[in-house]
Amino acid sequence: MKLNRSRLFTPGPTPIPDFILRKFNEPIIHHRKPEFEAIFSSVREGLKYVFQTAHEVFVLTSSGTGAMEAAVVNLVNPGDQVITVDAGKFGERWAEICHTYRIQPVVIKKEWGEAVQADEIVAILKKNPAAKAVYLTYSETSTGVAIDLPAIARAIRQHSDALIIVDAISALVALPLKMDEWGLDVVVSASQKGFMLPPGLAFIALSPRAQEIMQKSETPKFYLSLKKASKSIGSGTTPFTPASTIVIGLNESIHYLKEKGLETVWREHAVFATAIRSAMQACGLKLFTNFPSNAVSAVWCPAAIDYSQLTKMLQNQFGIIIAGGQGHLKGKILRIGHVGYYDALDIIAFVSAMELTLLQLKWKFEPVAGVQAAQNEIMKLFVS
Amino acid sequence: MKLNRSRLFTPGPTPIPDFILRKFNEPIIHHRKPEFEAIFSSVREGLKYVFQTAHEVFVLTSSGTGAMEAAVVNLVNPGDQVITVDAGKFGERWAEICHTYRIQPVVIKKEWGEAVQADEIVAILKKNPAAKAVYLTYSETSTGVAIDLPAIARAIRQHSDALIIVDAISALVALPLKMDEWGLDVVVSASQKGFMLPPGLAFIALSPRAQEIMQKSETPKFYLSLKKASKSIGSGTTPFTPASTIVIGLNESIHYLKEKGLETVWREHAVFATAIRSAMQACGLKLFTNFPSNAVSAVWCPAAIDYSQLTKMLQNQFGIIIAGGQGHLKGKILRIGHVGYYDALDIIAFVSAMELTLLQLKWKFEPVAGVQAAQNEIMKLFVS
Repeated sequence: MKLNRSRLFTPGPTPIPDFILRKFNEPIIHHRKPEFEAIFSSVREGLKYVFQTAHEVFVLTSSGTGAMEAAVVNLVNPGDQVITVDAGKFGERWAEICHTYRIQPVVIKKEWGEAVQADEIVAILKKNPAAKAVYLTYSETSTGVAIDLPAIARAIRQHSDALIIVDAISALVALPLKMDEWGLDVVVSASQKGFMLPPGLAFIALSPRAQEIMQKSETPKFYLSLKKASKSIGSGTTPFTPASTIVIGLNESIHYLKEKGLETVWREHAVFATAIRSAMQACGLKLFTNFPSNAVSAVWCPAAIDYSQLTKMLQNQFGIIIAGGQGHLKGKILRIGHVGYYDALDIIAFVSAMELTLLQLKWKFEPVAGVQAAQNEIMKLFVS
Repeated sequence: MKLNRSRLFTPGPTPIPDFILRKFNEPIIHHRKPEFEAIFSSVREGLKYVFQTAHEVFVLTSSGTGAMEAAVVNLVNPGDQVITVDAGKFGERWAEICHTYRIQPVVIKKEWGEAVQADEIVAILKKNPAAKAVYLTYSETSTGVAIDLPAIARAIRQHSDALIIVDAISALVALPLKMDEWGLDVVVSASQKGFMLPPGLAFIALSPRAQEIMQKSETPKFYLSLKKASKSIGSGTTPFTPASTIVIGLNESIHYLKEKGLETVWREHAVFATAIRSAMQACGLKLFTNFPSNAVSAVWCPAAIDYSQLTKMLQNQFGIIIAGGQGHLKGKILRIGHVGYYDALDIIAFVSAMELTLLQLKWKFEPVAGVQAAQNEIMKLFVS
């Protein structure tokens, strides 16, 4: 029994809506029978909508990292040169995976909190014309930074044939993403962020060009082989037992995203993200980055405030869980997740909880300034 | 809405008990916070009991195949020689995974339905003394065959230092398994069989010797790296986001297995499996194998009976789903799963449904002979 309602504001997992949770209460069905096959077929179509692609989105039973690894071992070969961007924990992971398979990453190193720019990538591509792929992180969960993906993709495509491979694990649904229109070759995501599901499924979408390259890839892989996935998908199934209950939840999640419409979903995420950031600034807190992501907001924890006291109070008094900094930012920044199933009043509630906590911690700011700032932003959803 | 109650008798997924299903209806919790950490810690202890080992059982977010691959890439190196047994689809998979990583399997080929014997393995080991590991399938789901694992393990250990690596994906819980006592080095399993959970988690237990070898392994891997898992487990966690809701279900499943006691669980599986096989024989059907597994029973579909008509009637009239043959046995055998949450009356119900179906299909046998045979076996649980 829990004495208080709990409210997750972490960048994954994100709250699961009741209409999805209820599905997990149903008796299990067999994943090789028509009832499940119909759901899987609907999910495959729906994923294309969410990724904005006409091509196949493969479903893996793994964490997001499994799909990241699939985007390496199925697309580049040992000895190949690629470009990665290290501006946070997840950008760094691309390079780590490449090293594991003797793929050579040319790493663009950025300060955490900075966003790589199109011209920097183009400059590196010009110096390394043999690079087979550019690995990007659309929304870097460890820093709350989003890159200008459409501009970067356009610039890469003008100067190079390198595959454009995007970690959109926390970005998908929170930020606009148009895979085909933007010329992305590979997009990776996972279930526990914008899809509002438990962790356990990962996704990888491939352009026709990427599919061709994948069919010829030589890096050893078995469980994460997309050639196997591609063969099985011909008969509407997966090569290995899928996390079927999460697939069933995914079907509900996609229905929701379709009914609401991606444009609306993206707009709401933008407004809620802006509302939280304006509110935090109105409370006298400083944003960690000038390139904020609509999936997660990173805010400096003032030196005068004890990070763990703040987060403990948020949790004990309001049931709110946020994330802290990773690596060298541990205890120094707050990361507030707002991707998924939040509405305007969840945002107001969060801001109010922060105000009530900061007031108790004797932080100086004008009471209700945060709520006022959030309301001002949220009003834009209604009067436009 | 479903008009009829559904009853799964497939060798995975298996029915999920209500007390586990209900857990999936709860709001998601964060996998890096104390509430989940306490559950994960309890699960780690409980897995040791189920695997009958004093050593760590690693939890992967993947299908069983992910853990099989982990048992290759973390334990043997490219160029190494190993021994595998191909007597069904899953034994074959060990060799496929090895080939993928340029590990050389010496394959002991057996007819489907046969069980490899200790002396055959010893003979091959003597011819191939450099073999680093023997890969076994305790219960071969594709044929319903169980091997005499304790005898085989004893024989291997007398003659060789090769690692004993066991696929117990469908065997665990259904068949006695005592990892440490039997000298097994690696045991692999998954969530959707004896653990009575949705698919999405896989498990891999390592003996101290296997852990040492794992730490030095050179085959490239990232997501399935047990070195990473081993490092994270030091702080009580997993290297990548786990399928947390299934872990929460697993905690319930382990409580159940502990409370019932593994000896009782094994005995029930043996009695129910024998009841089903005696019943099928009493109805005039022939068993596919002389080495039957307590996880799944394979029975020949008589030539006079149309396989798909039989399974359709079972499903439409009684909500019962069984599995068919795989590969060259498609349409020729029936596979009846009975691992997991079944009780005596579920078994009687299944046998009665088979009788009622066979009668409609004009199959000649003495009515109620199957139920009588099943009852005779089940009585052994009560009078002993």
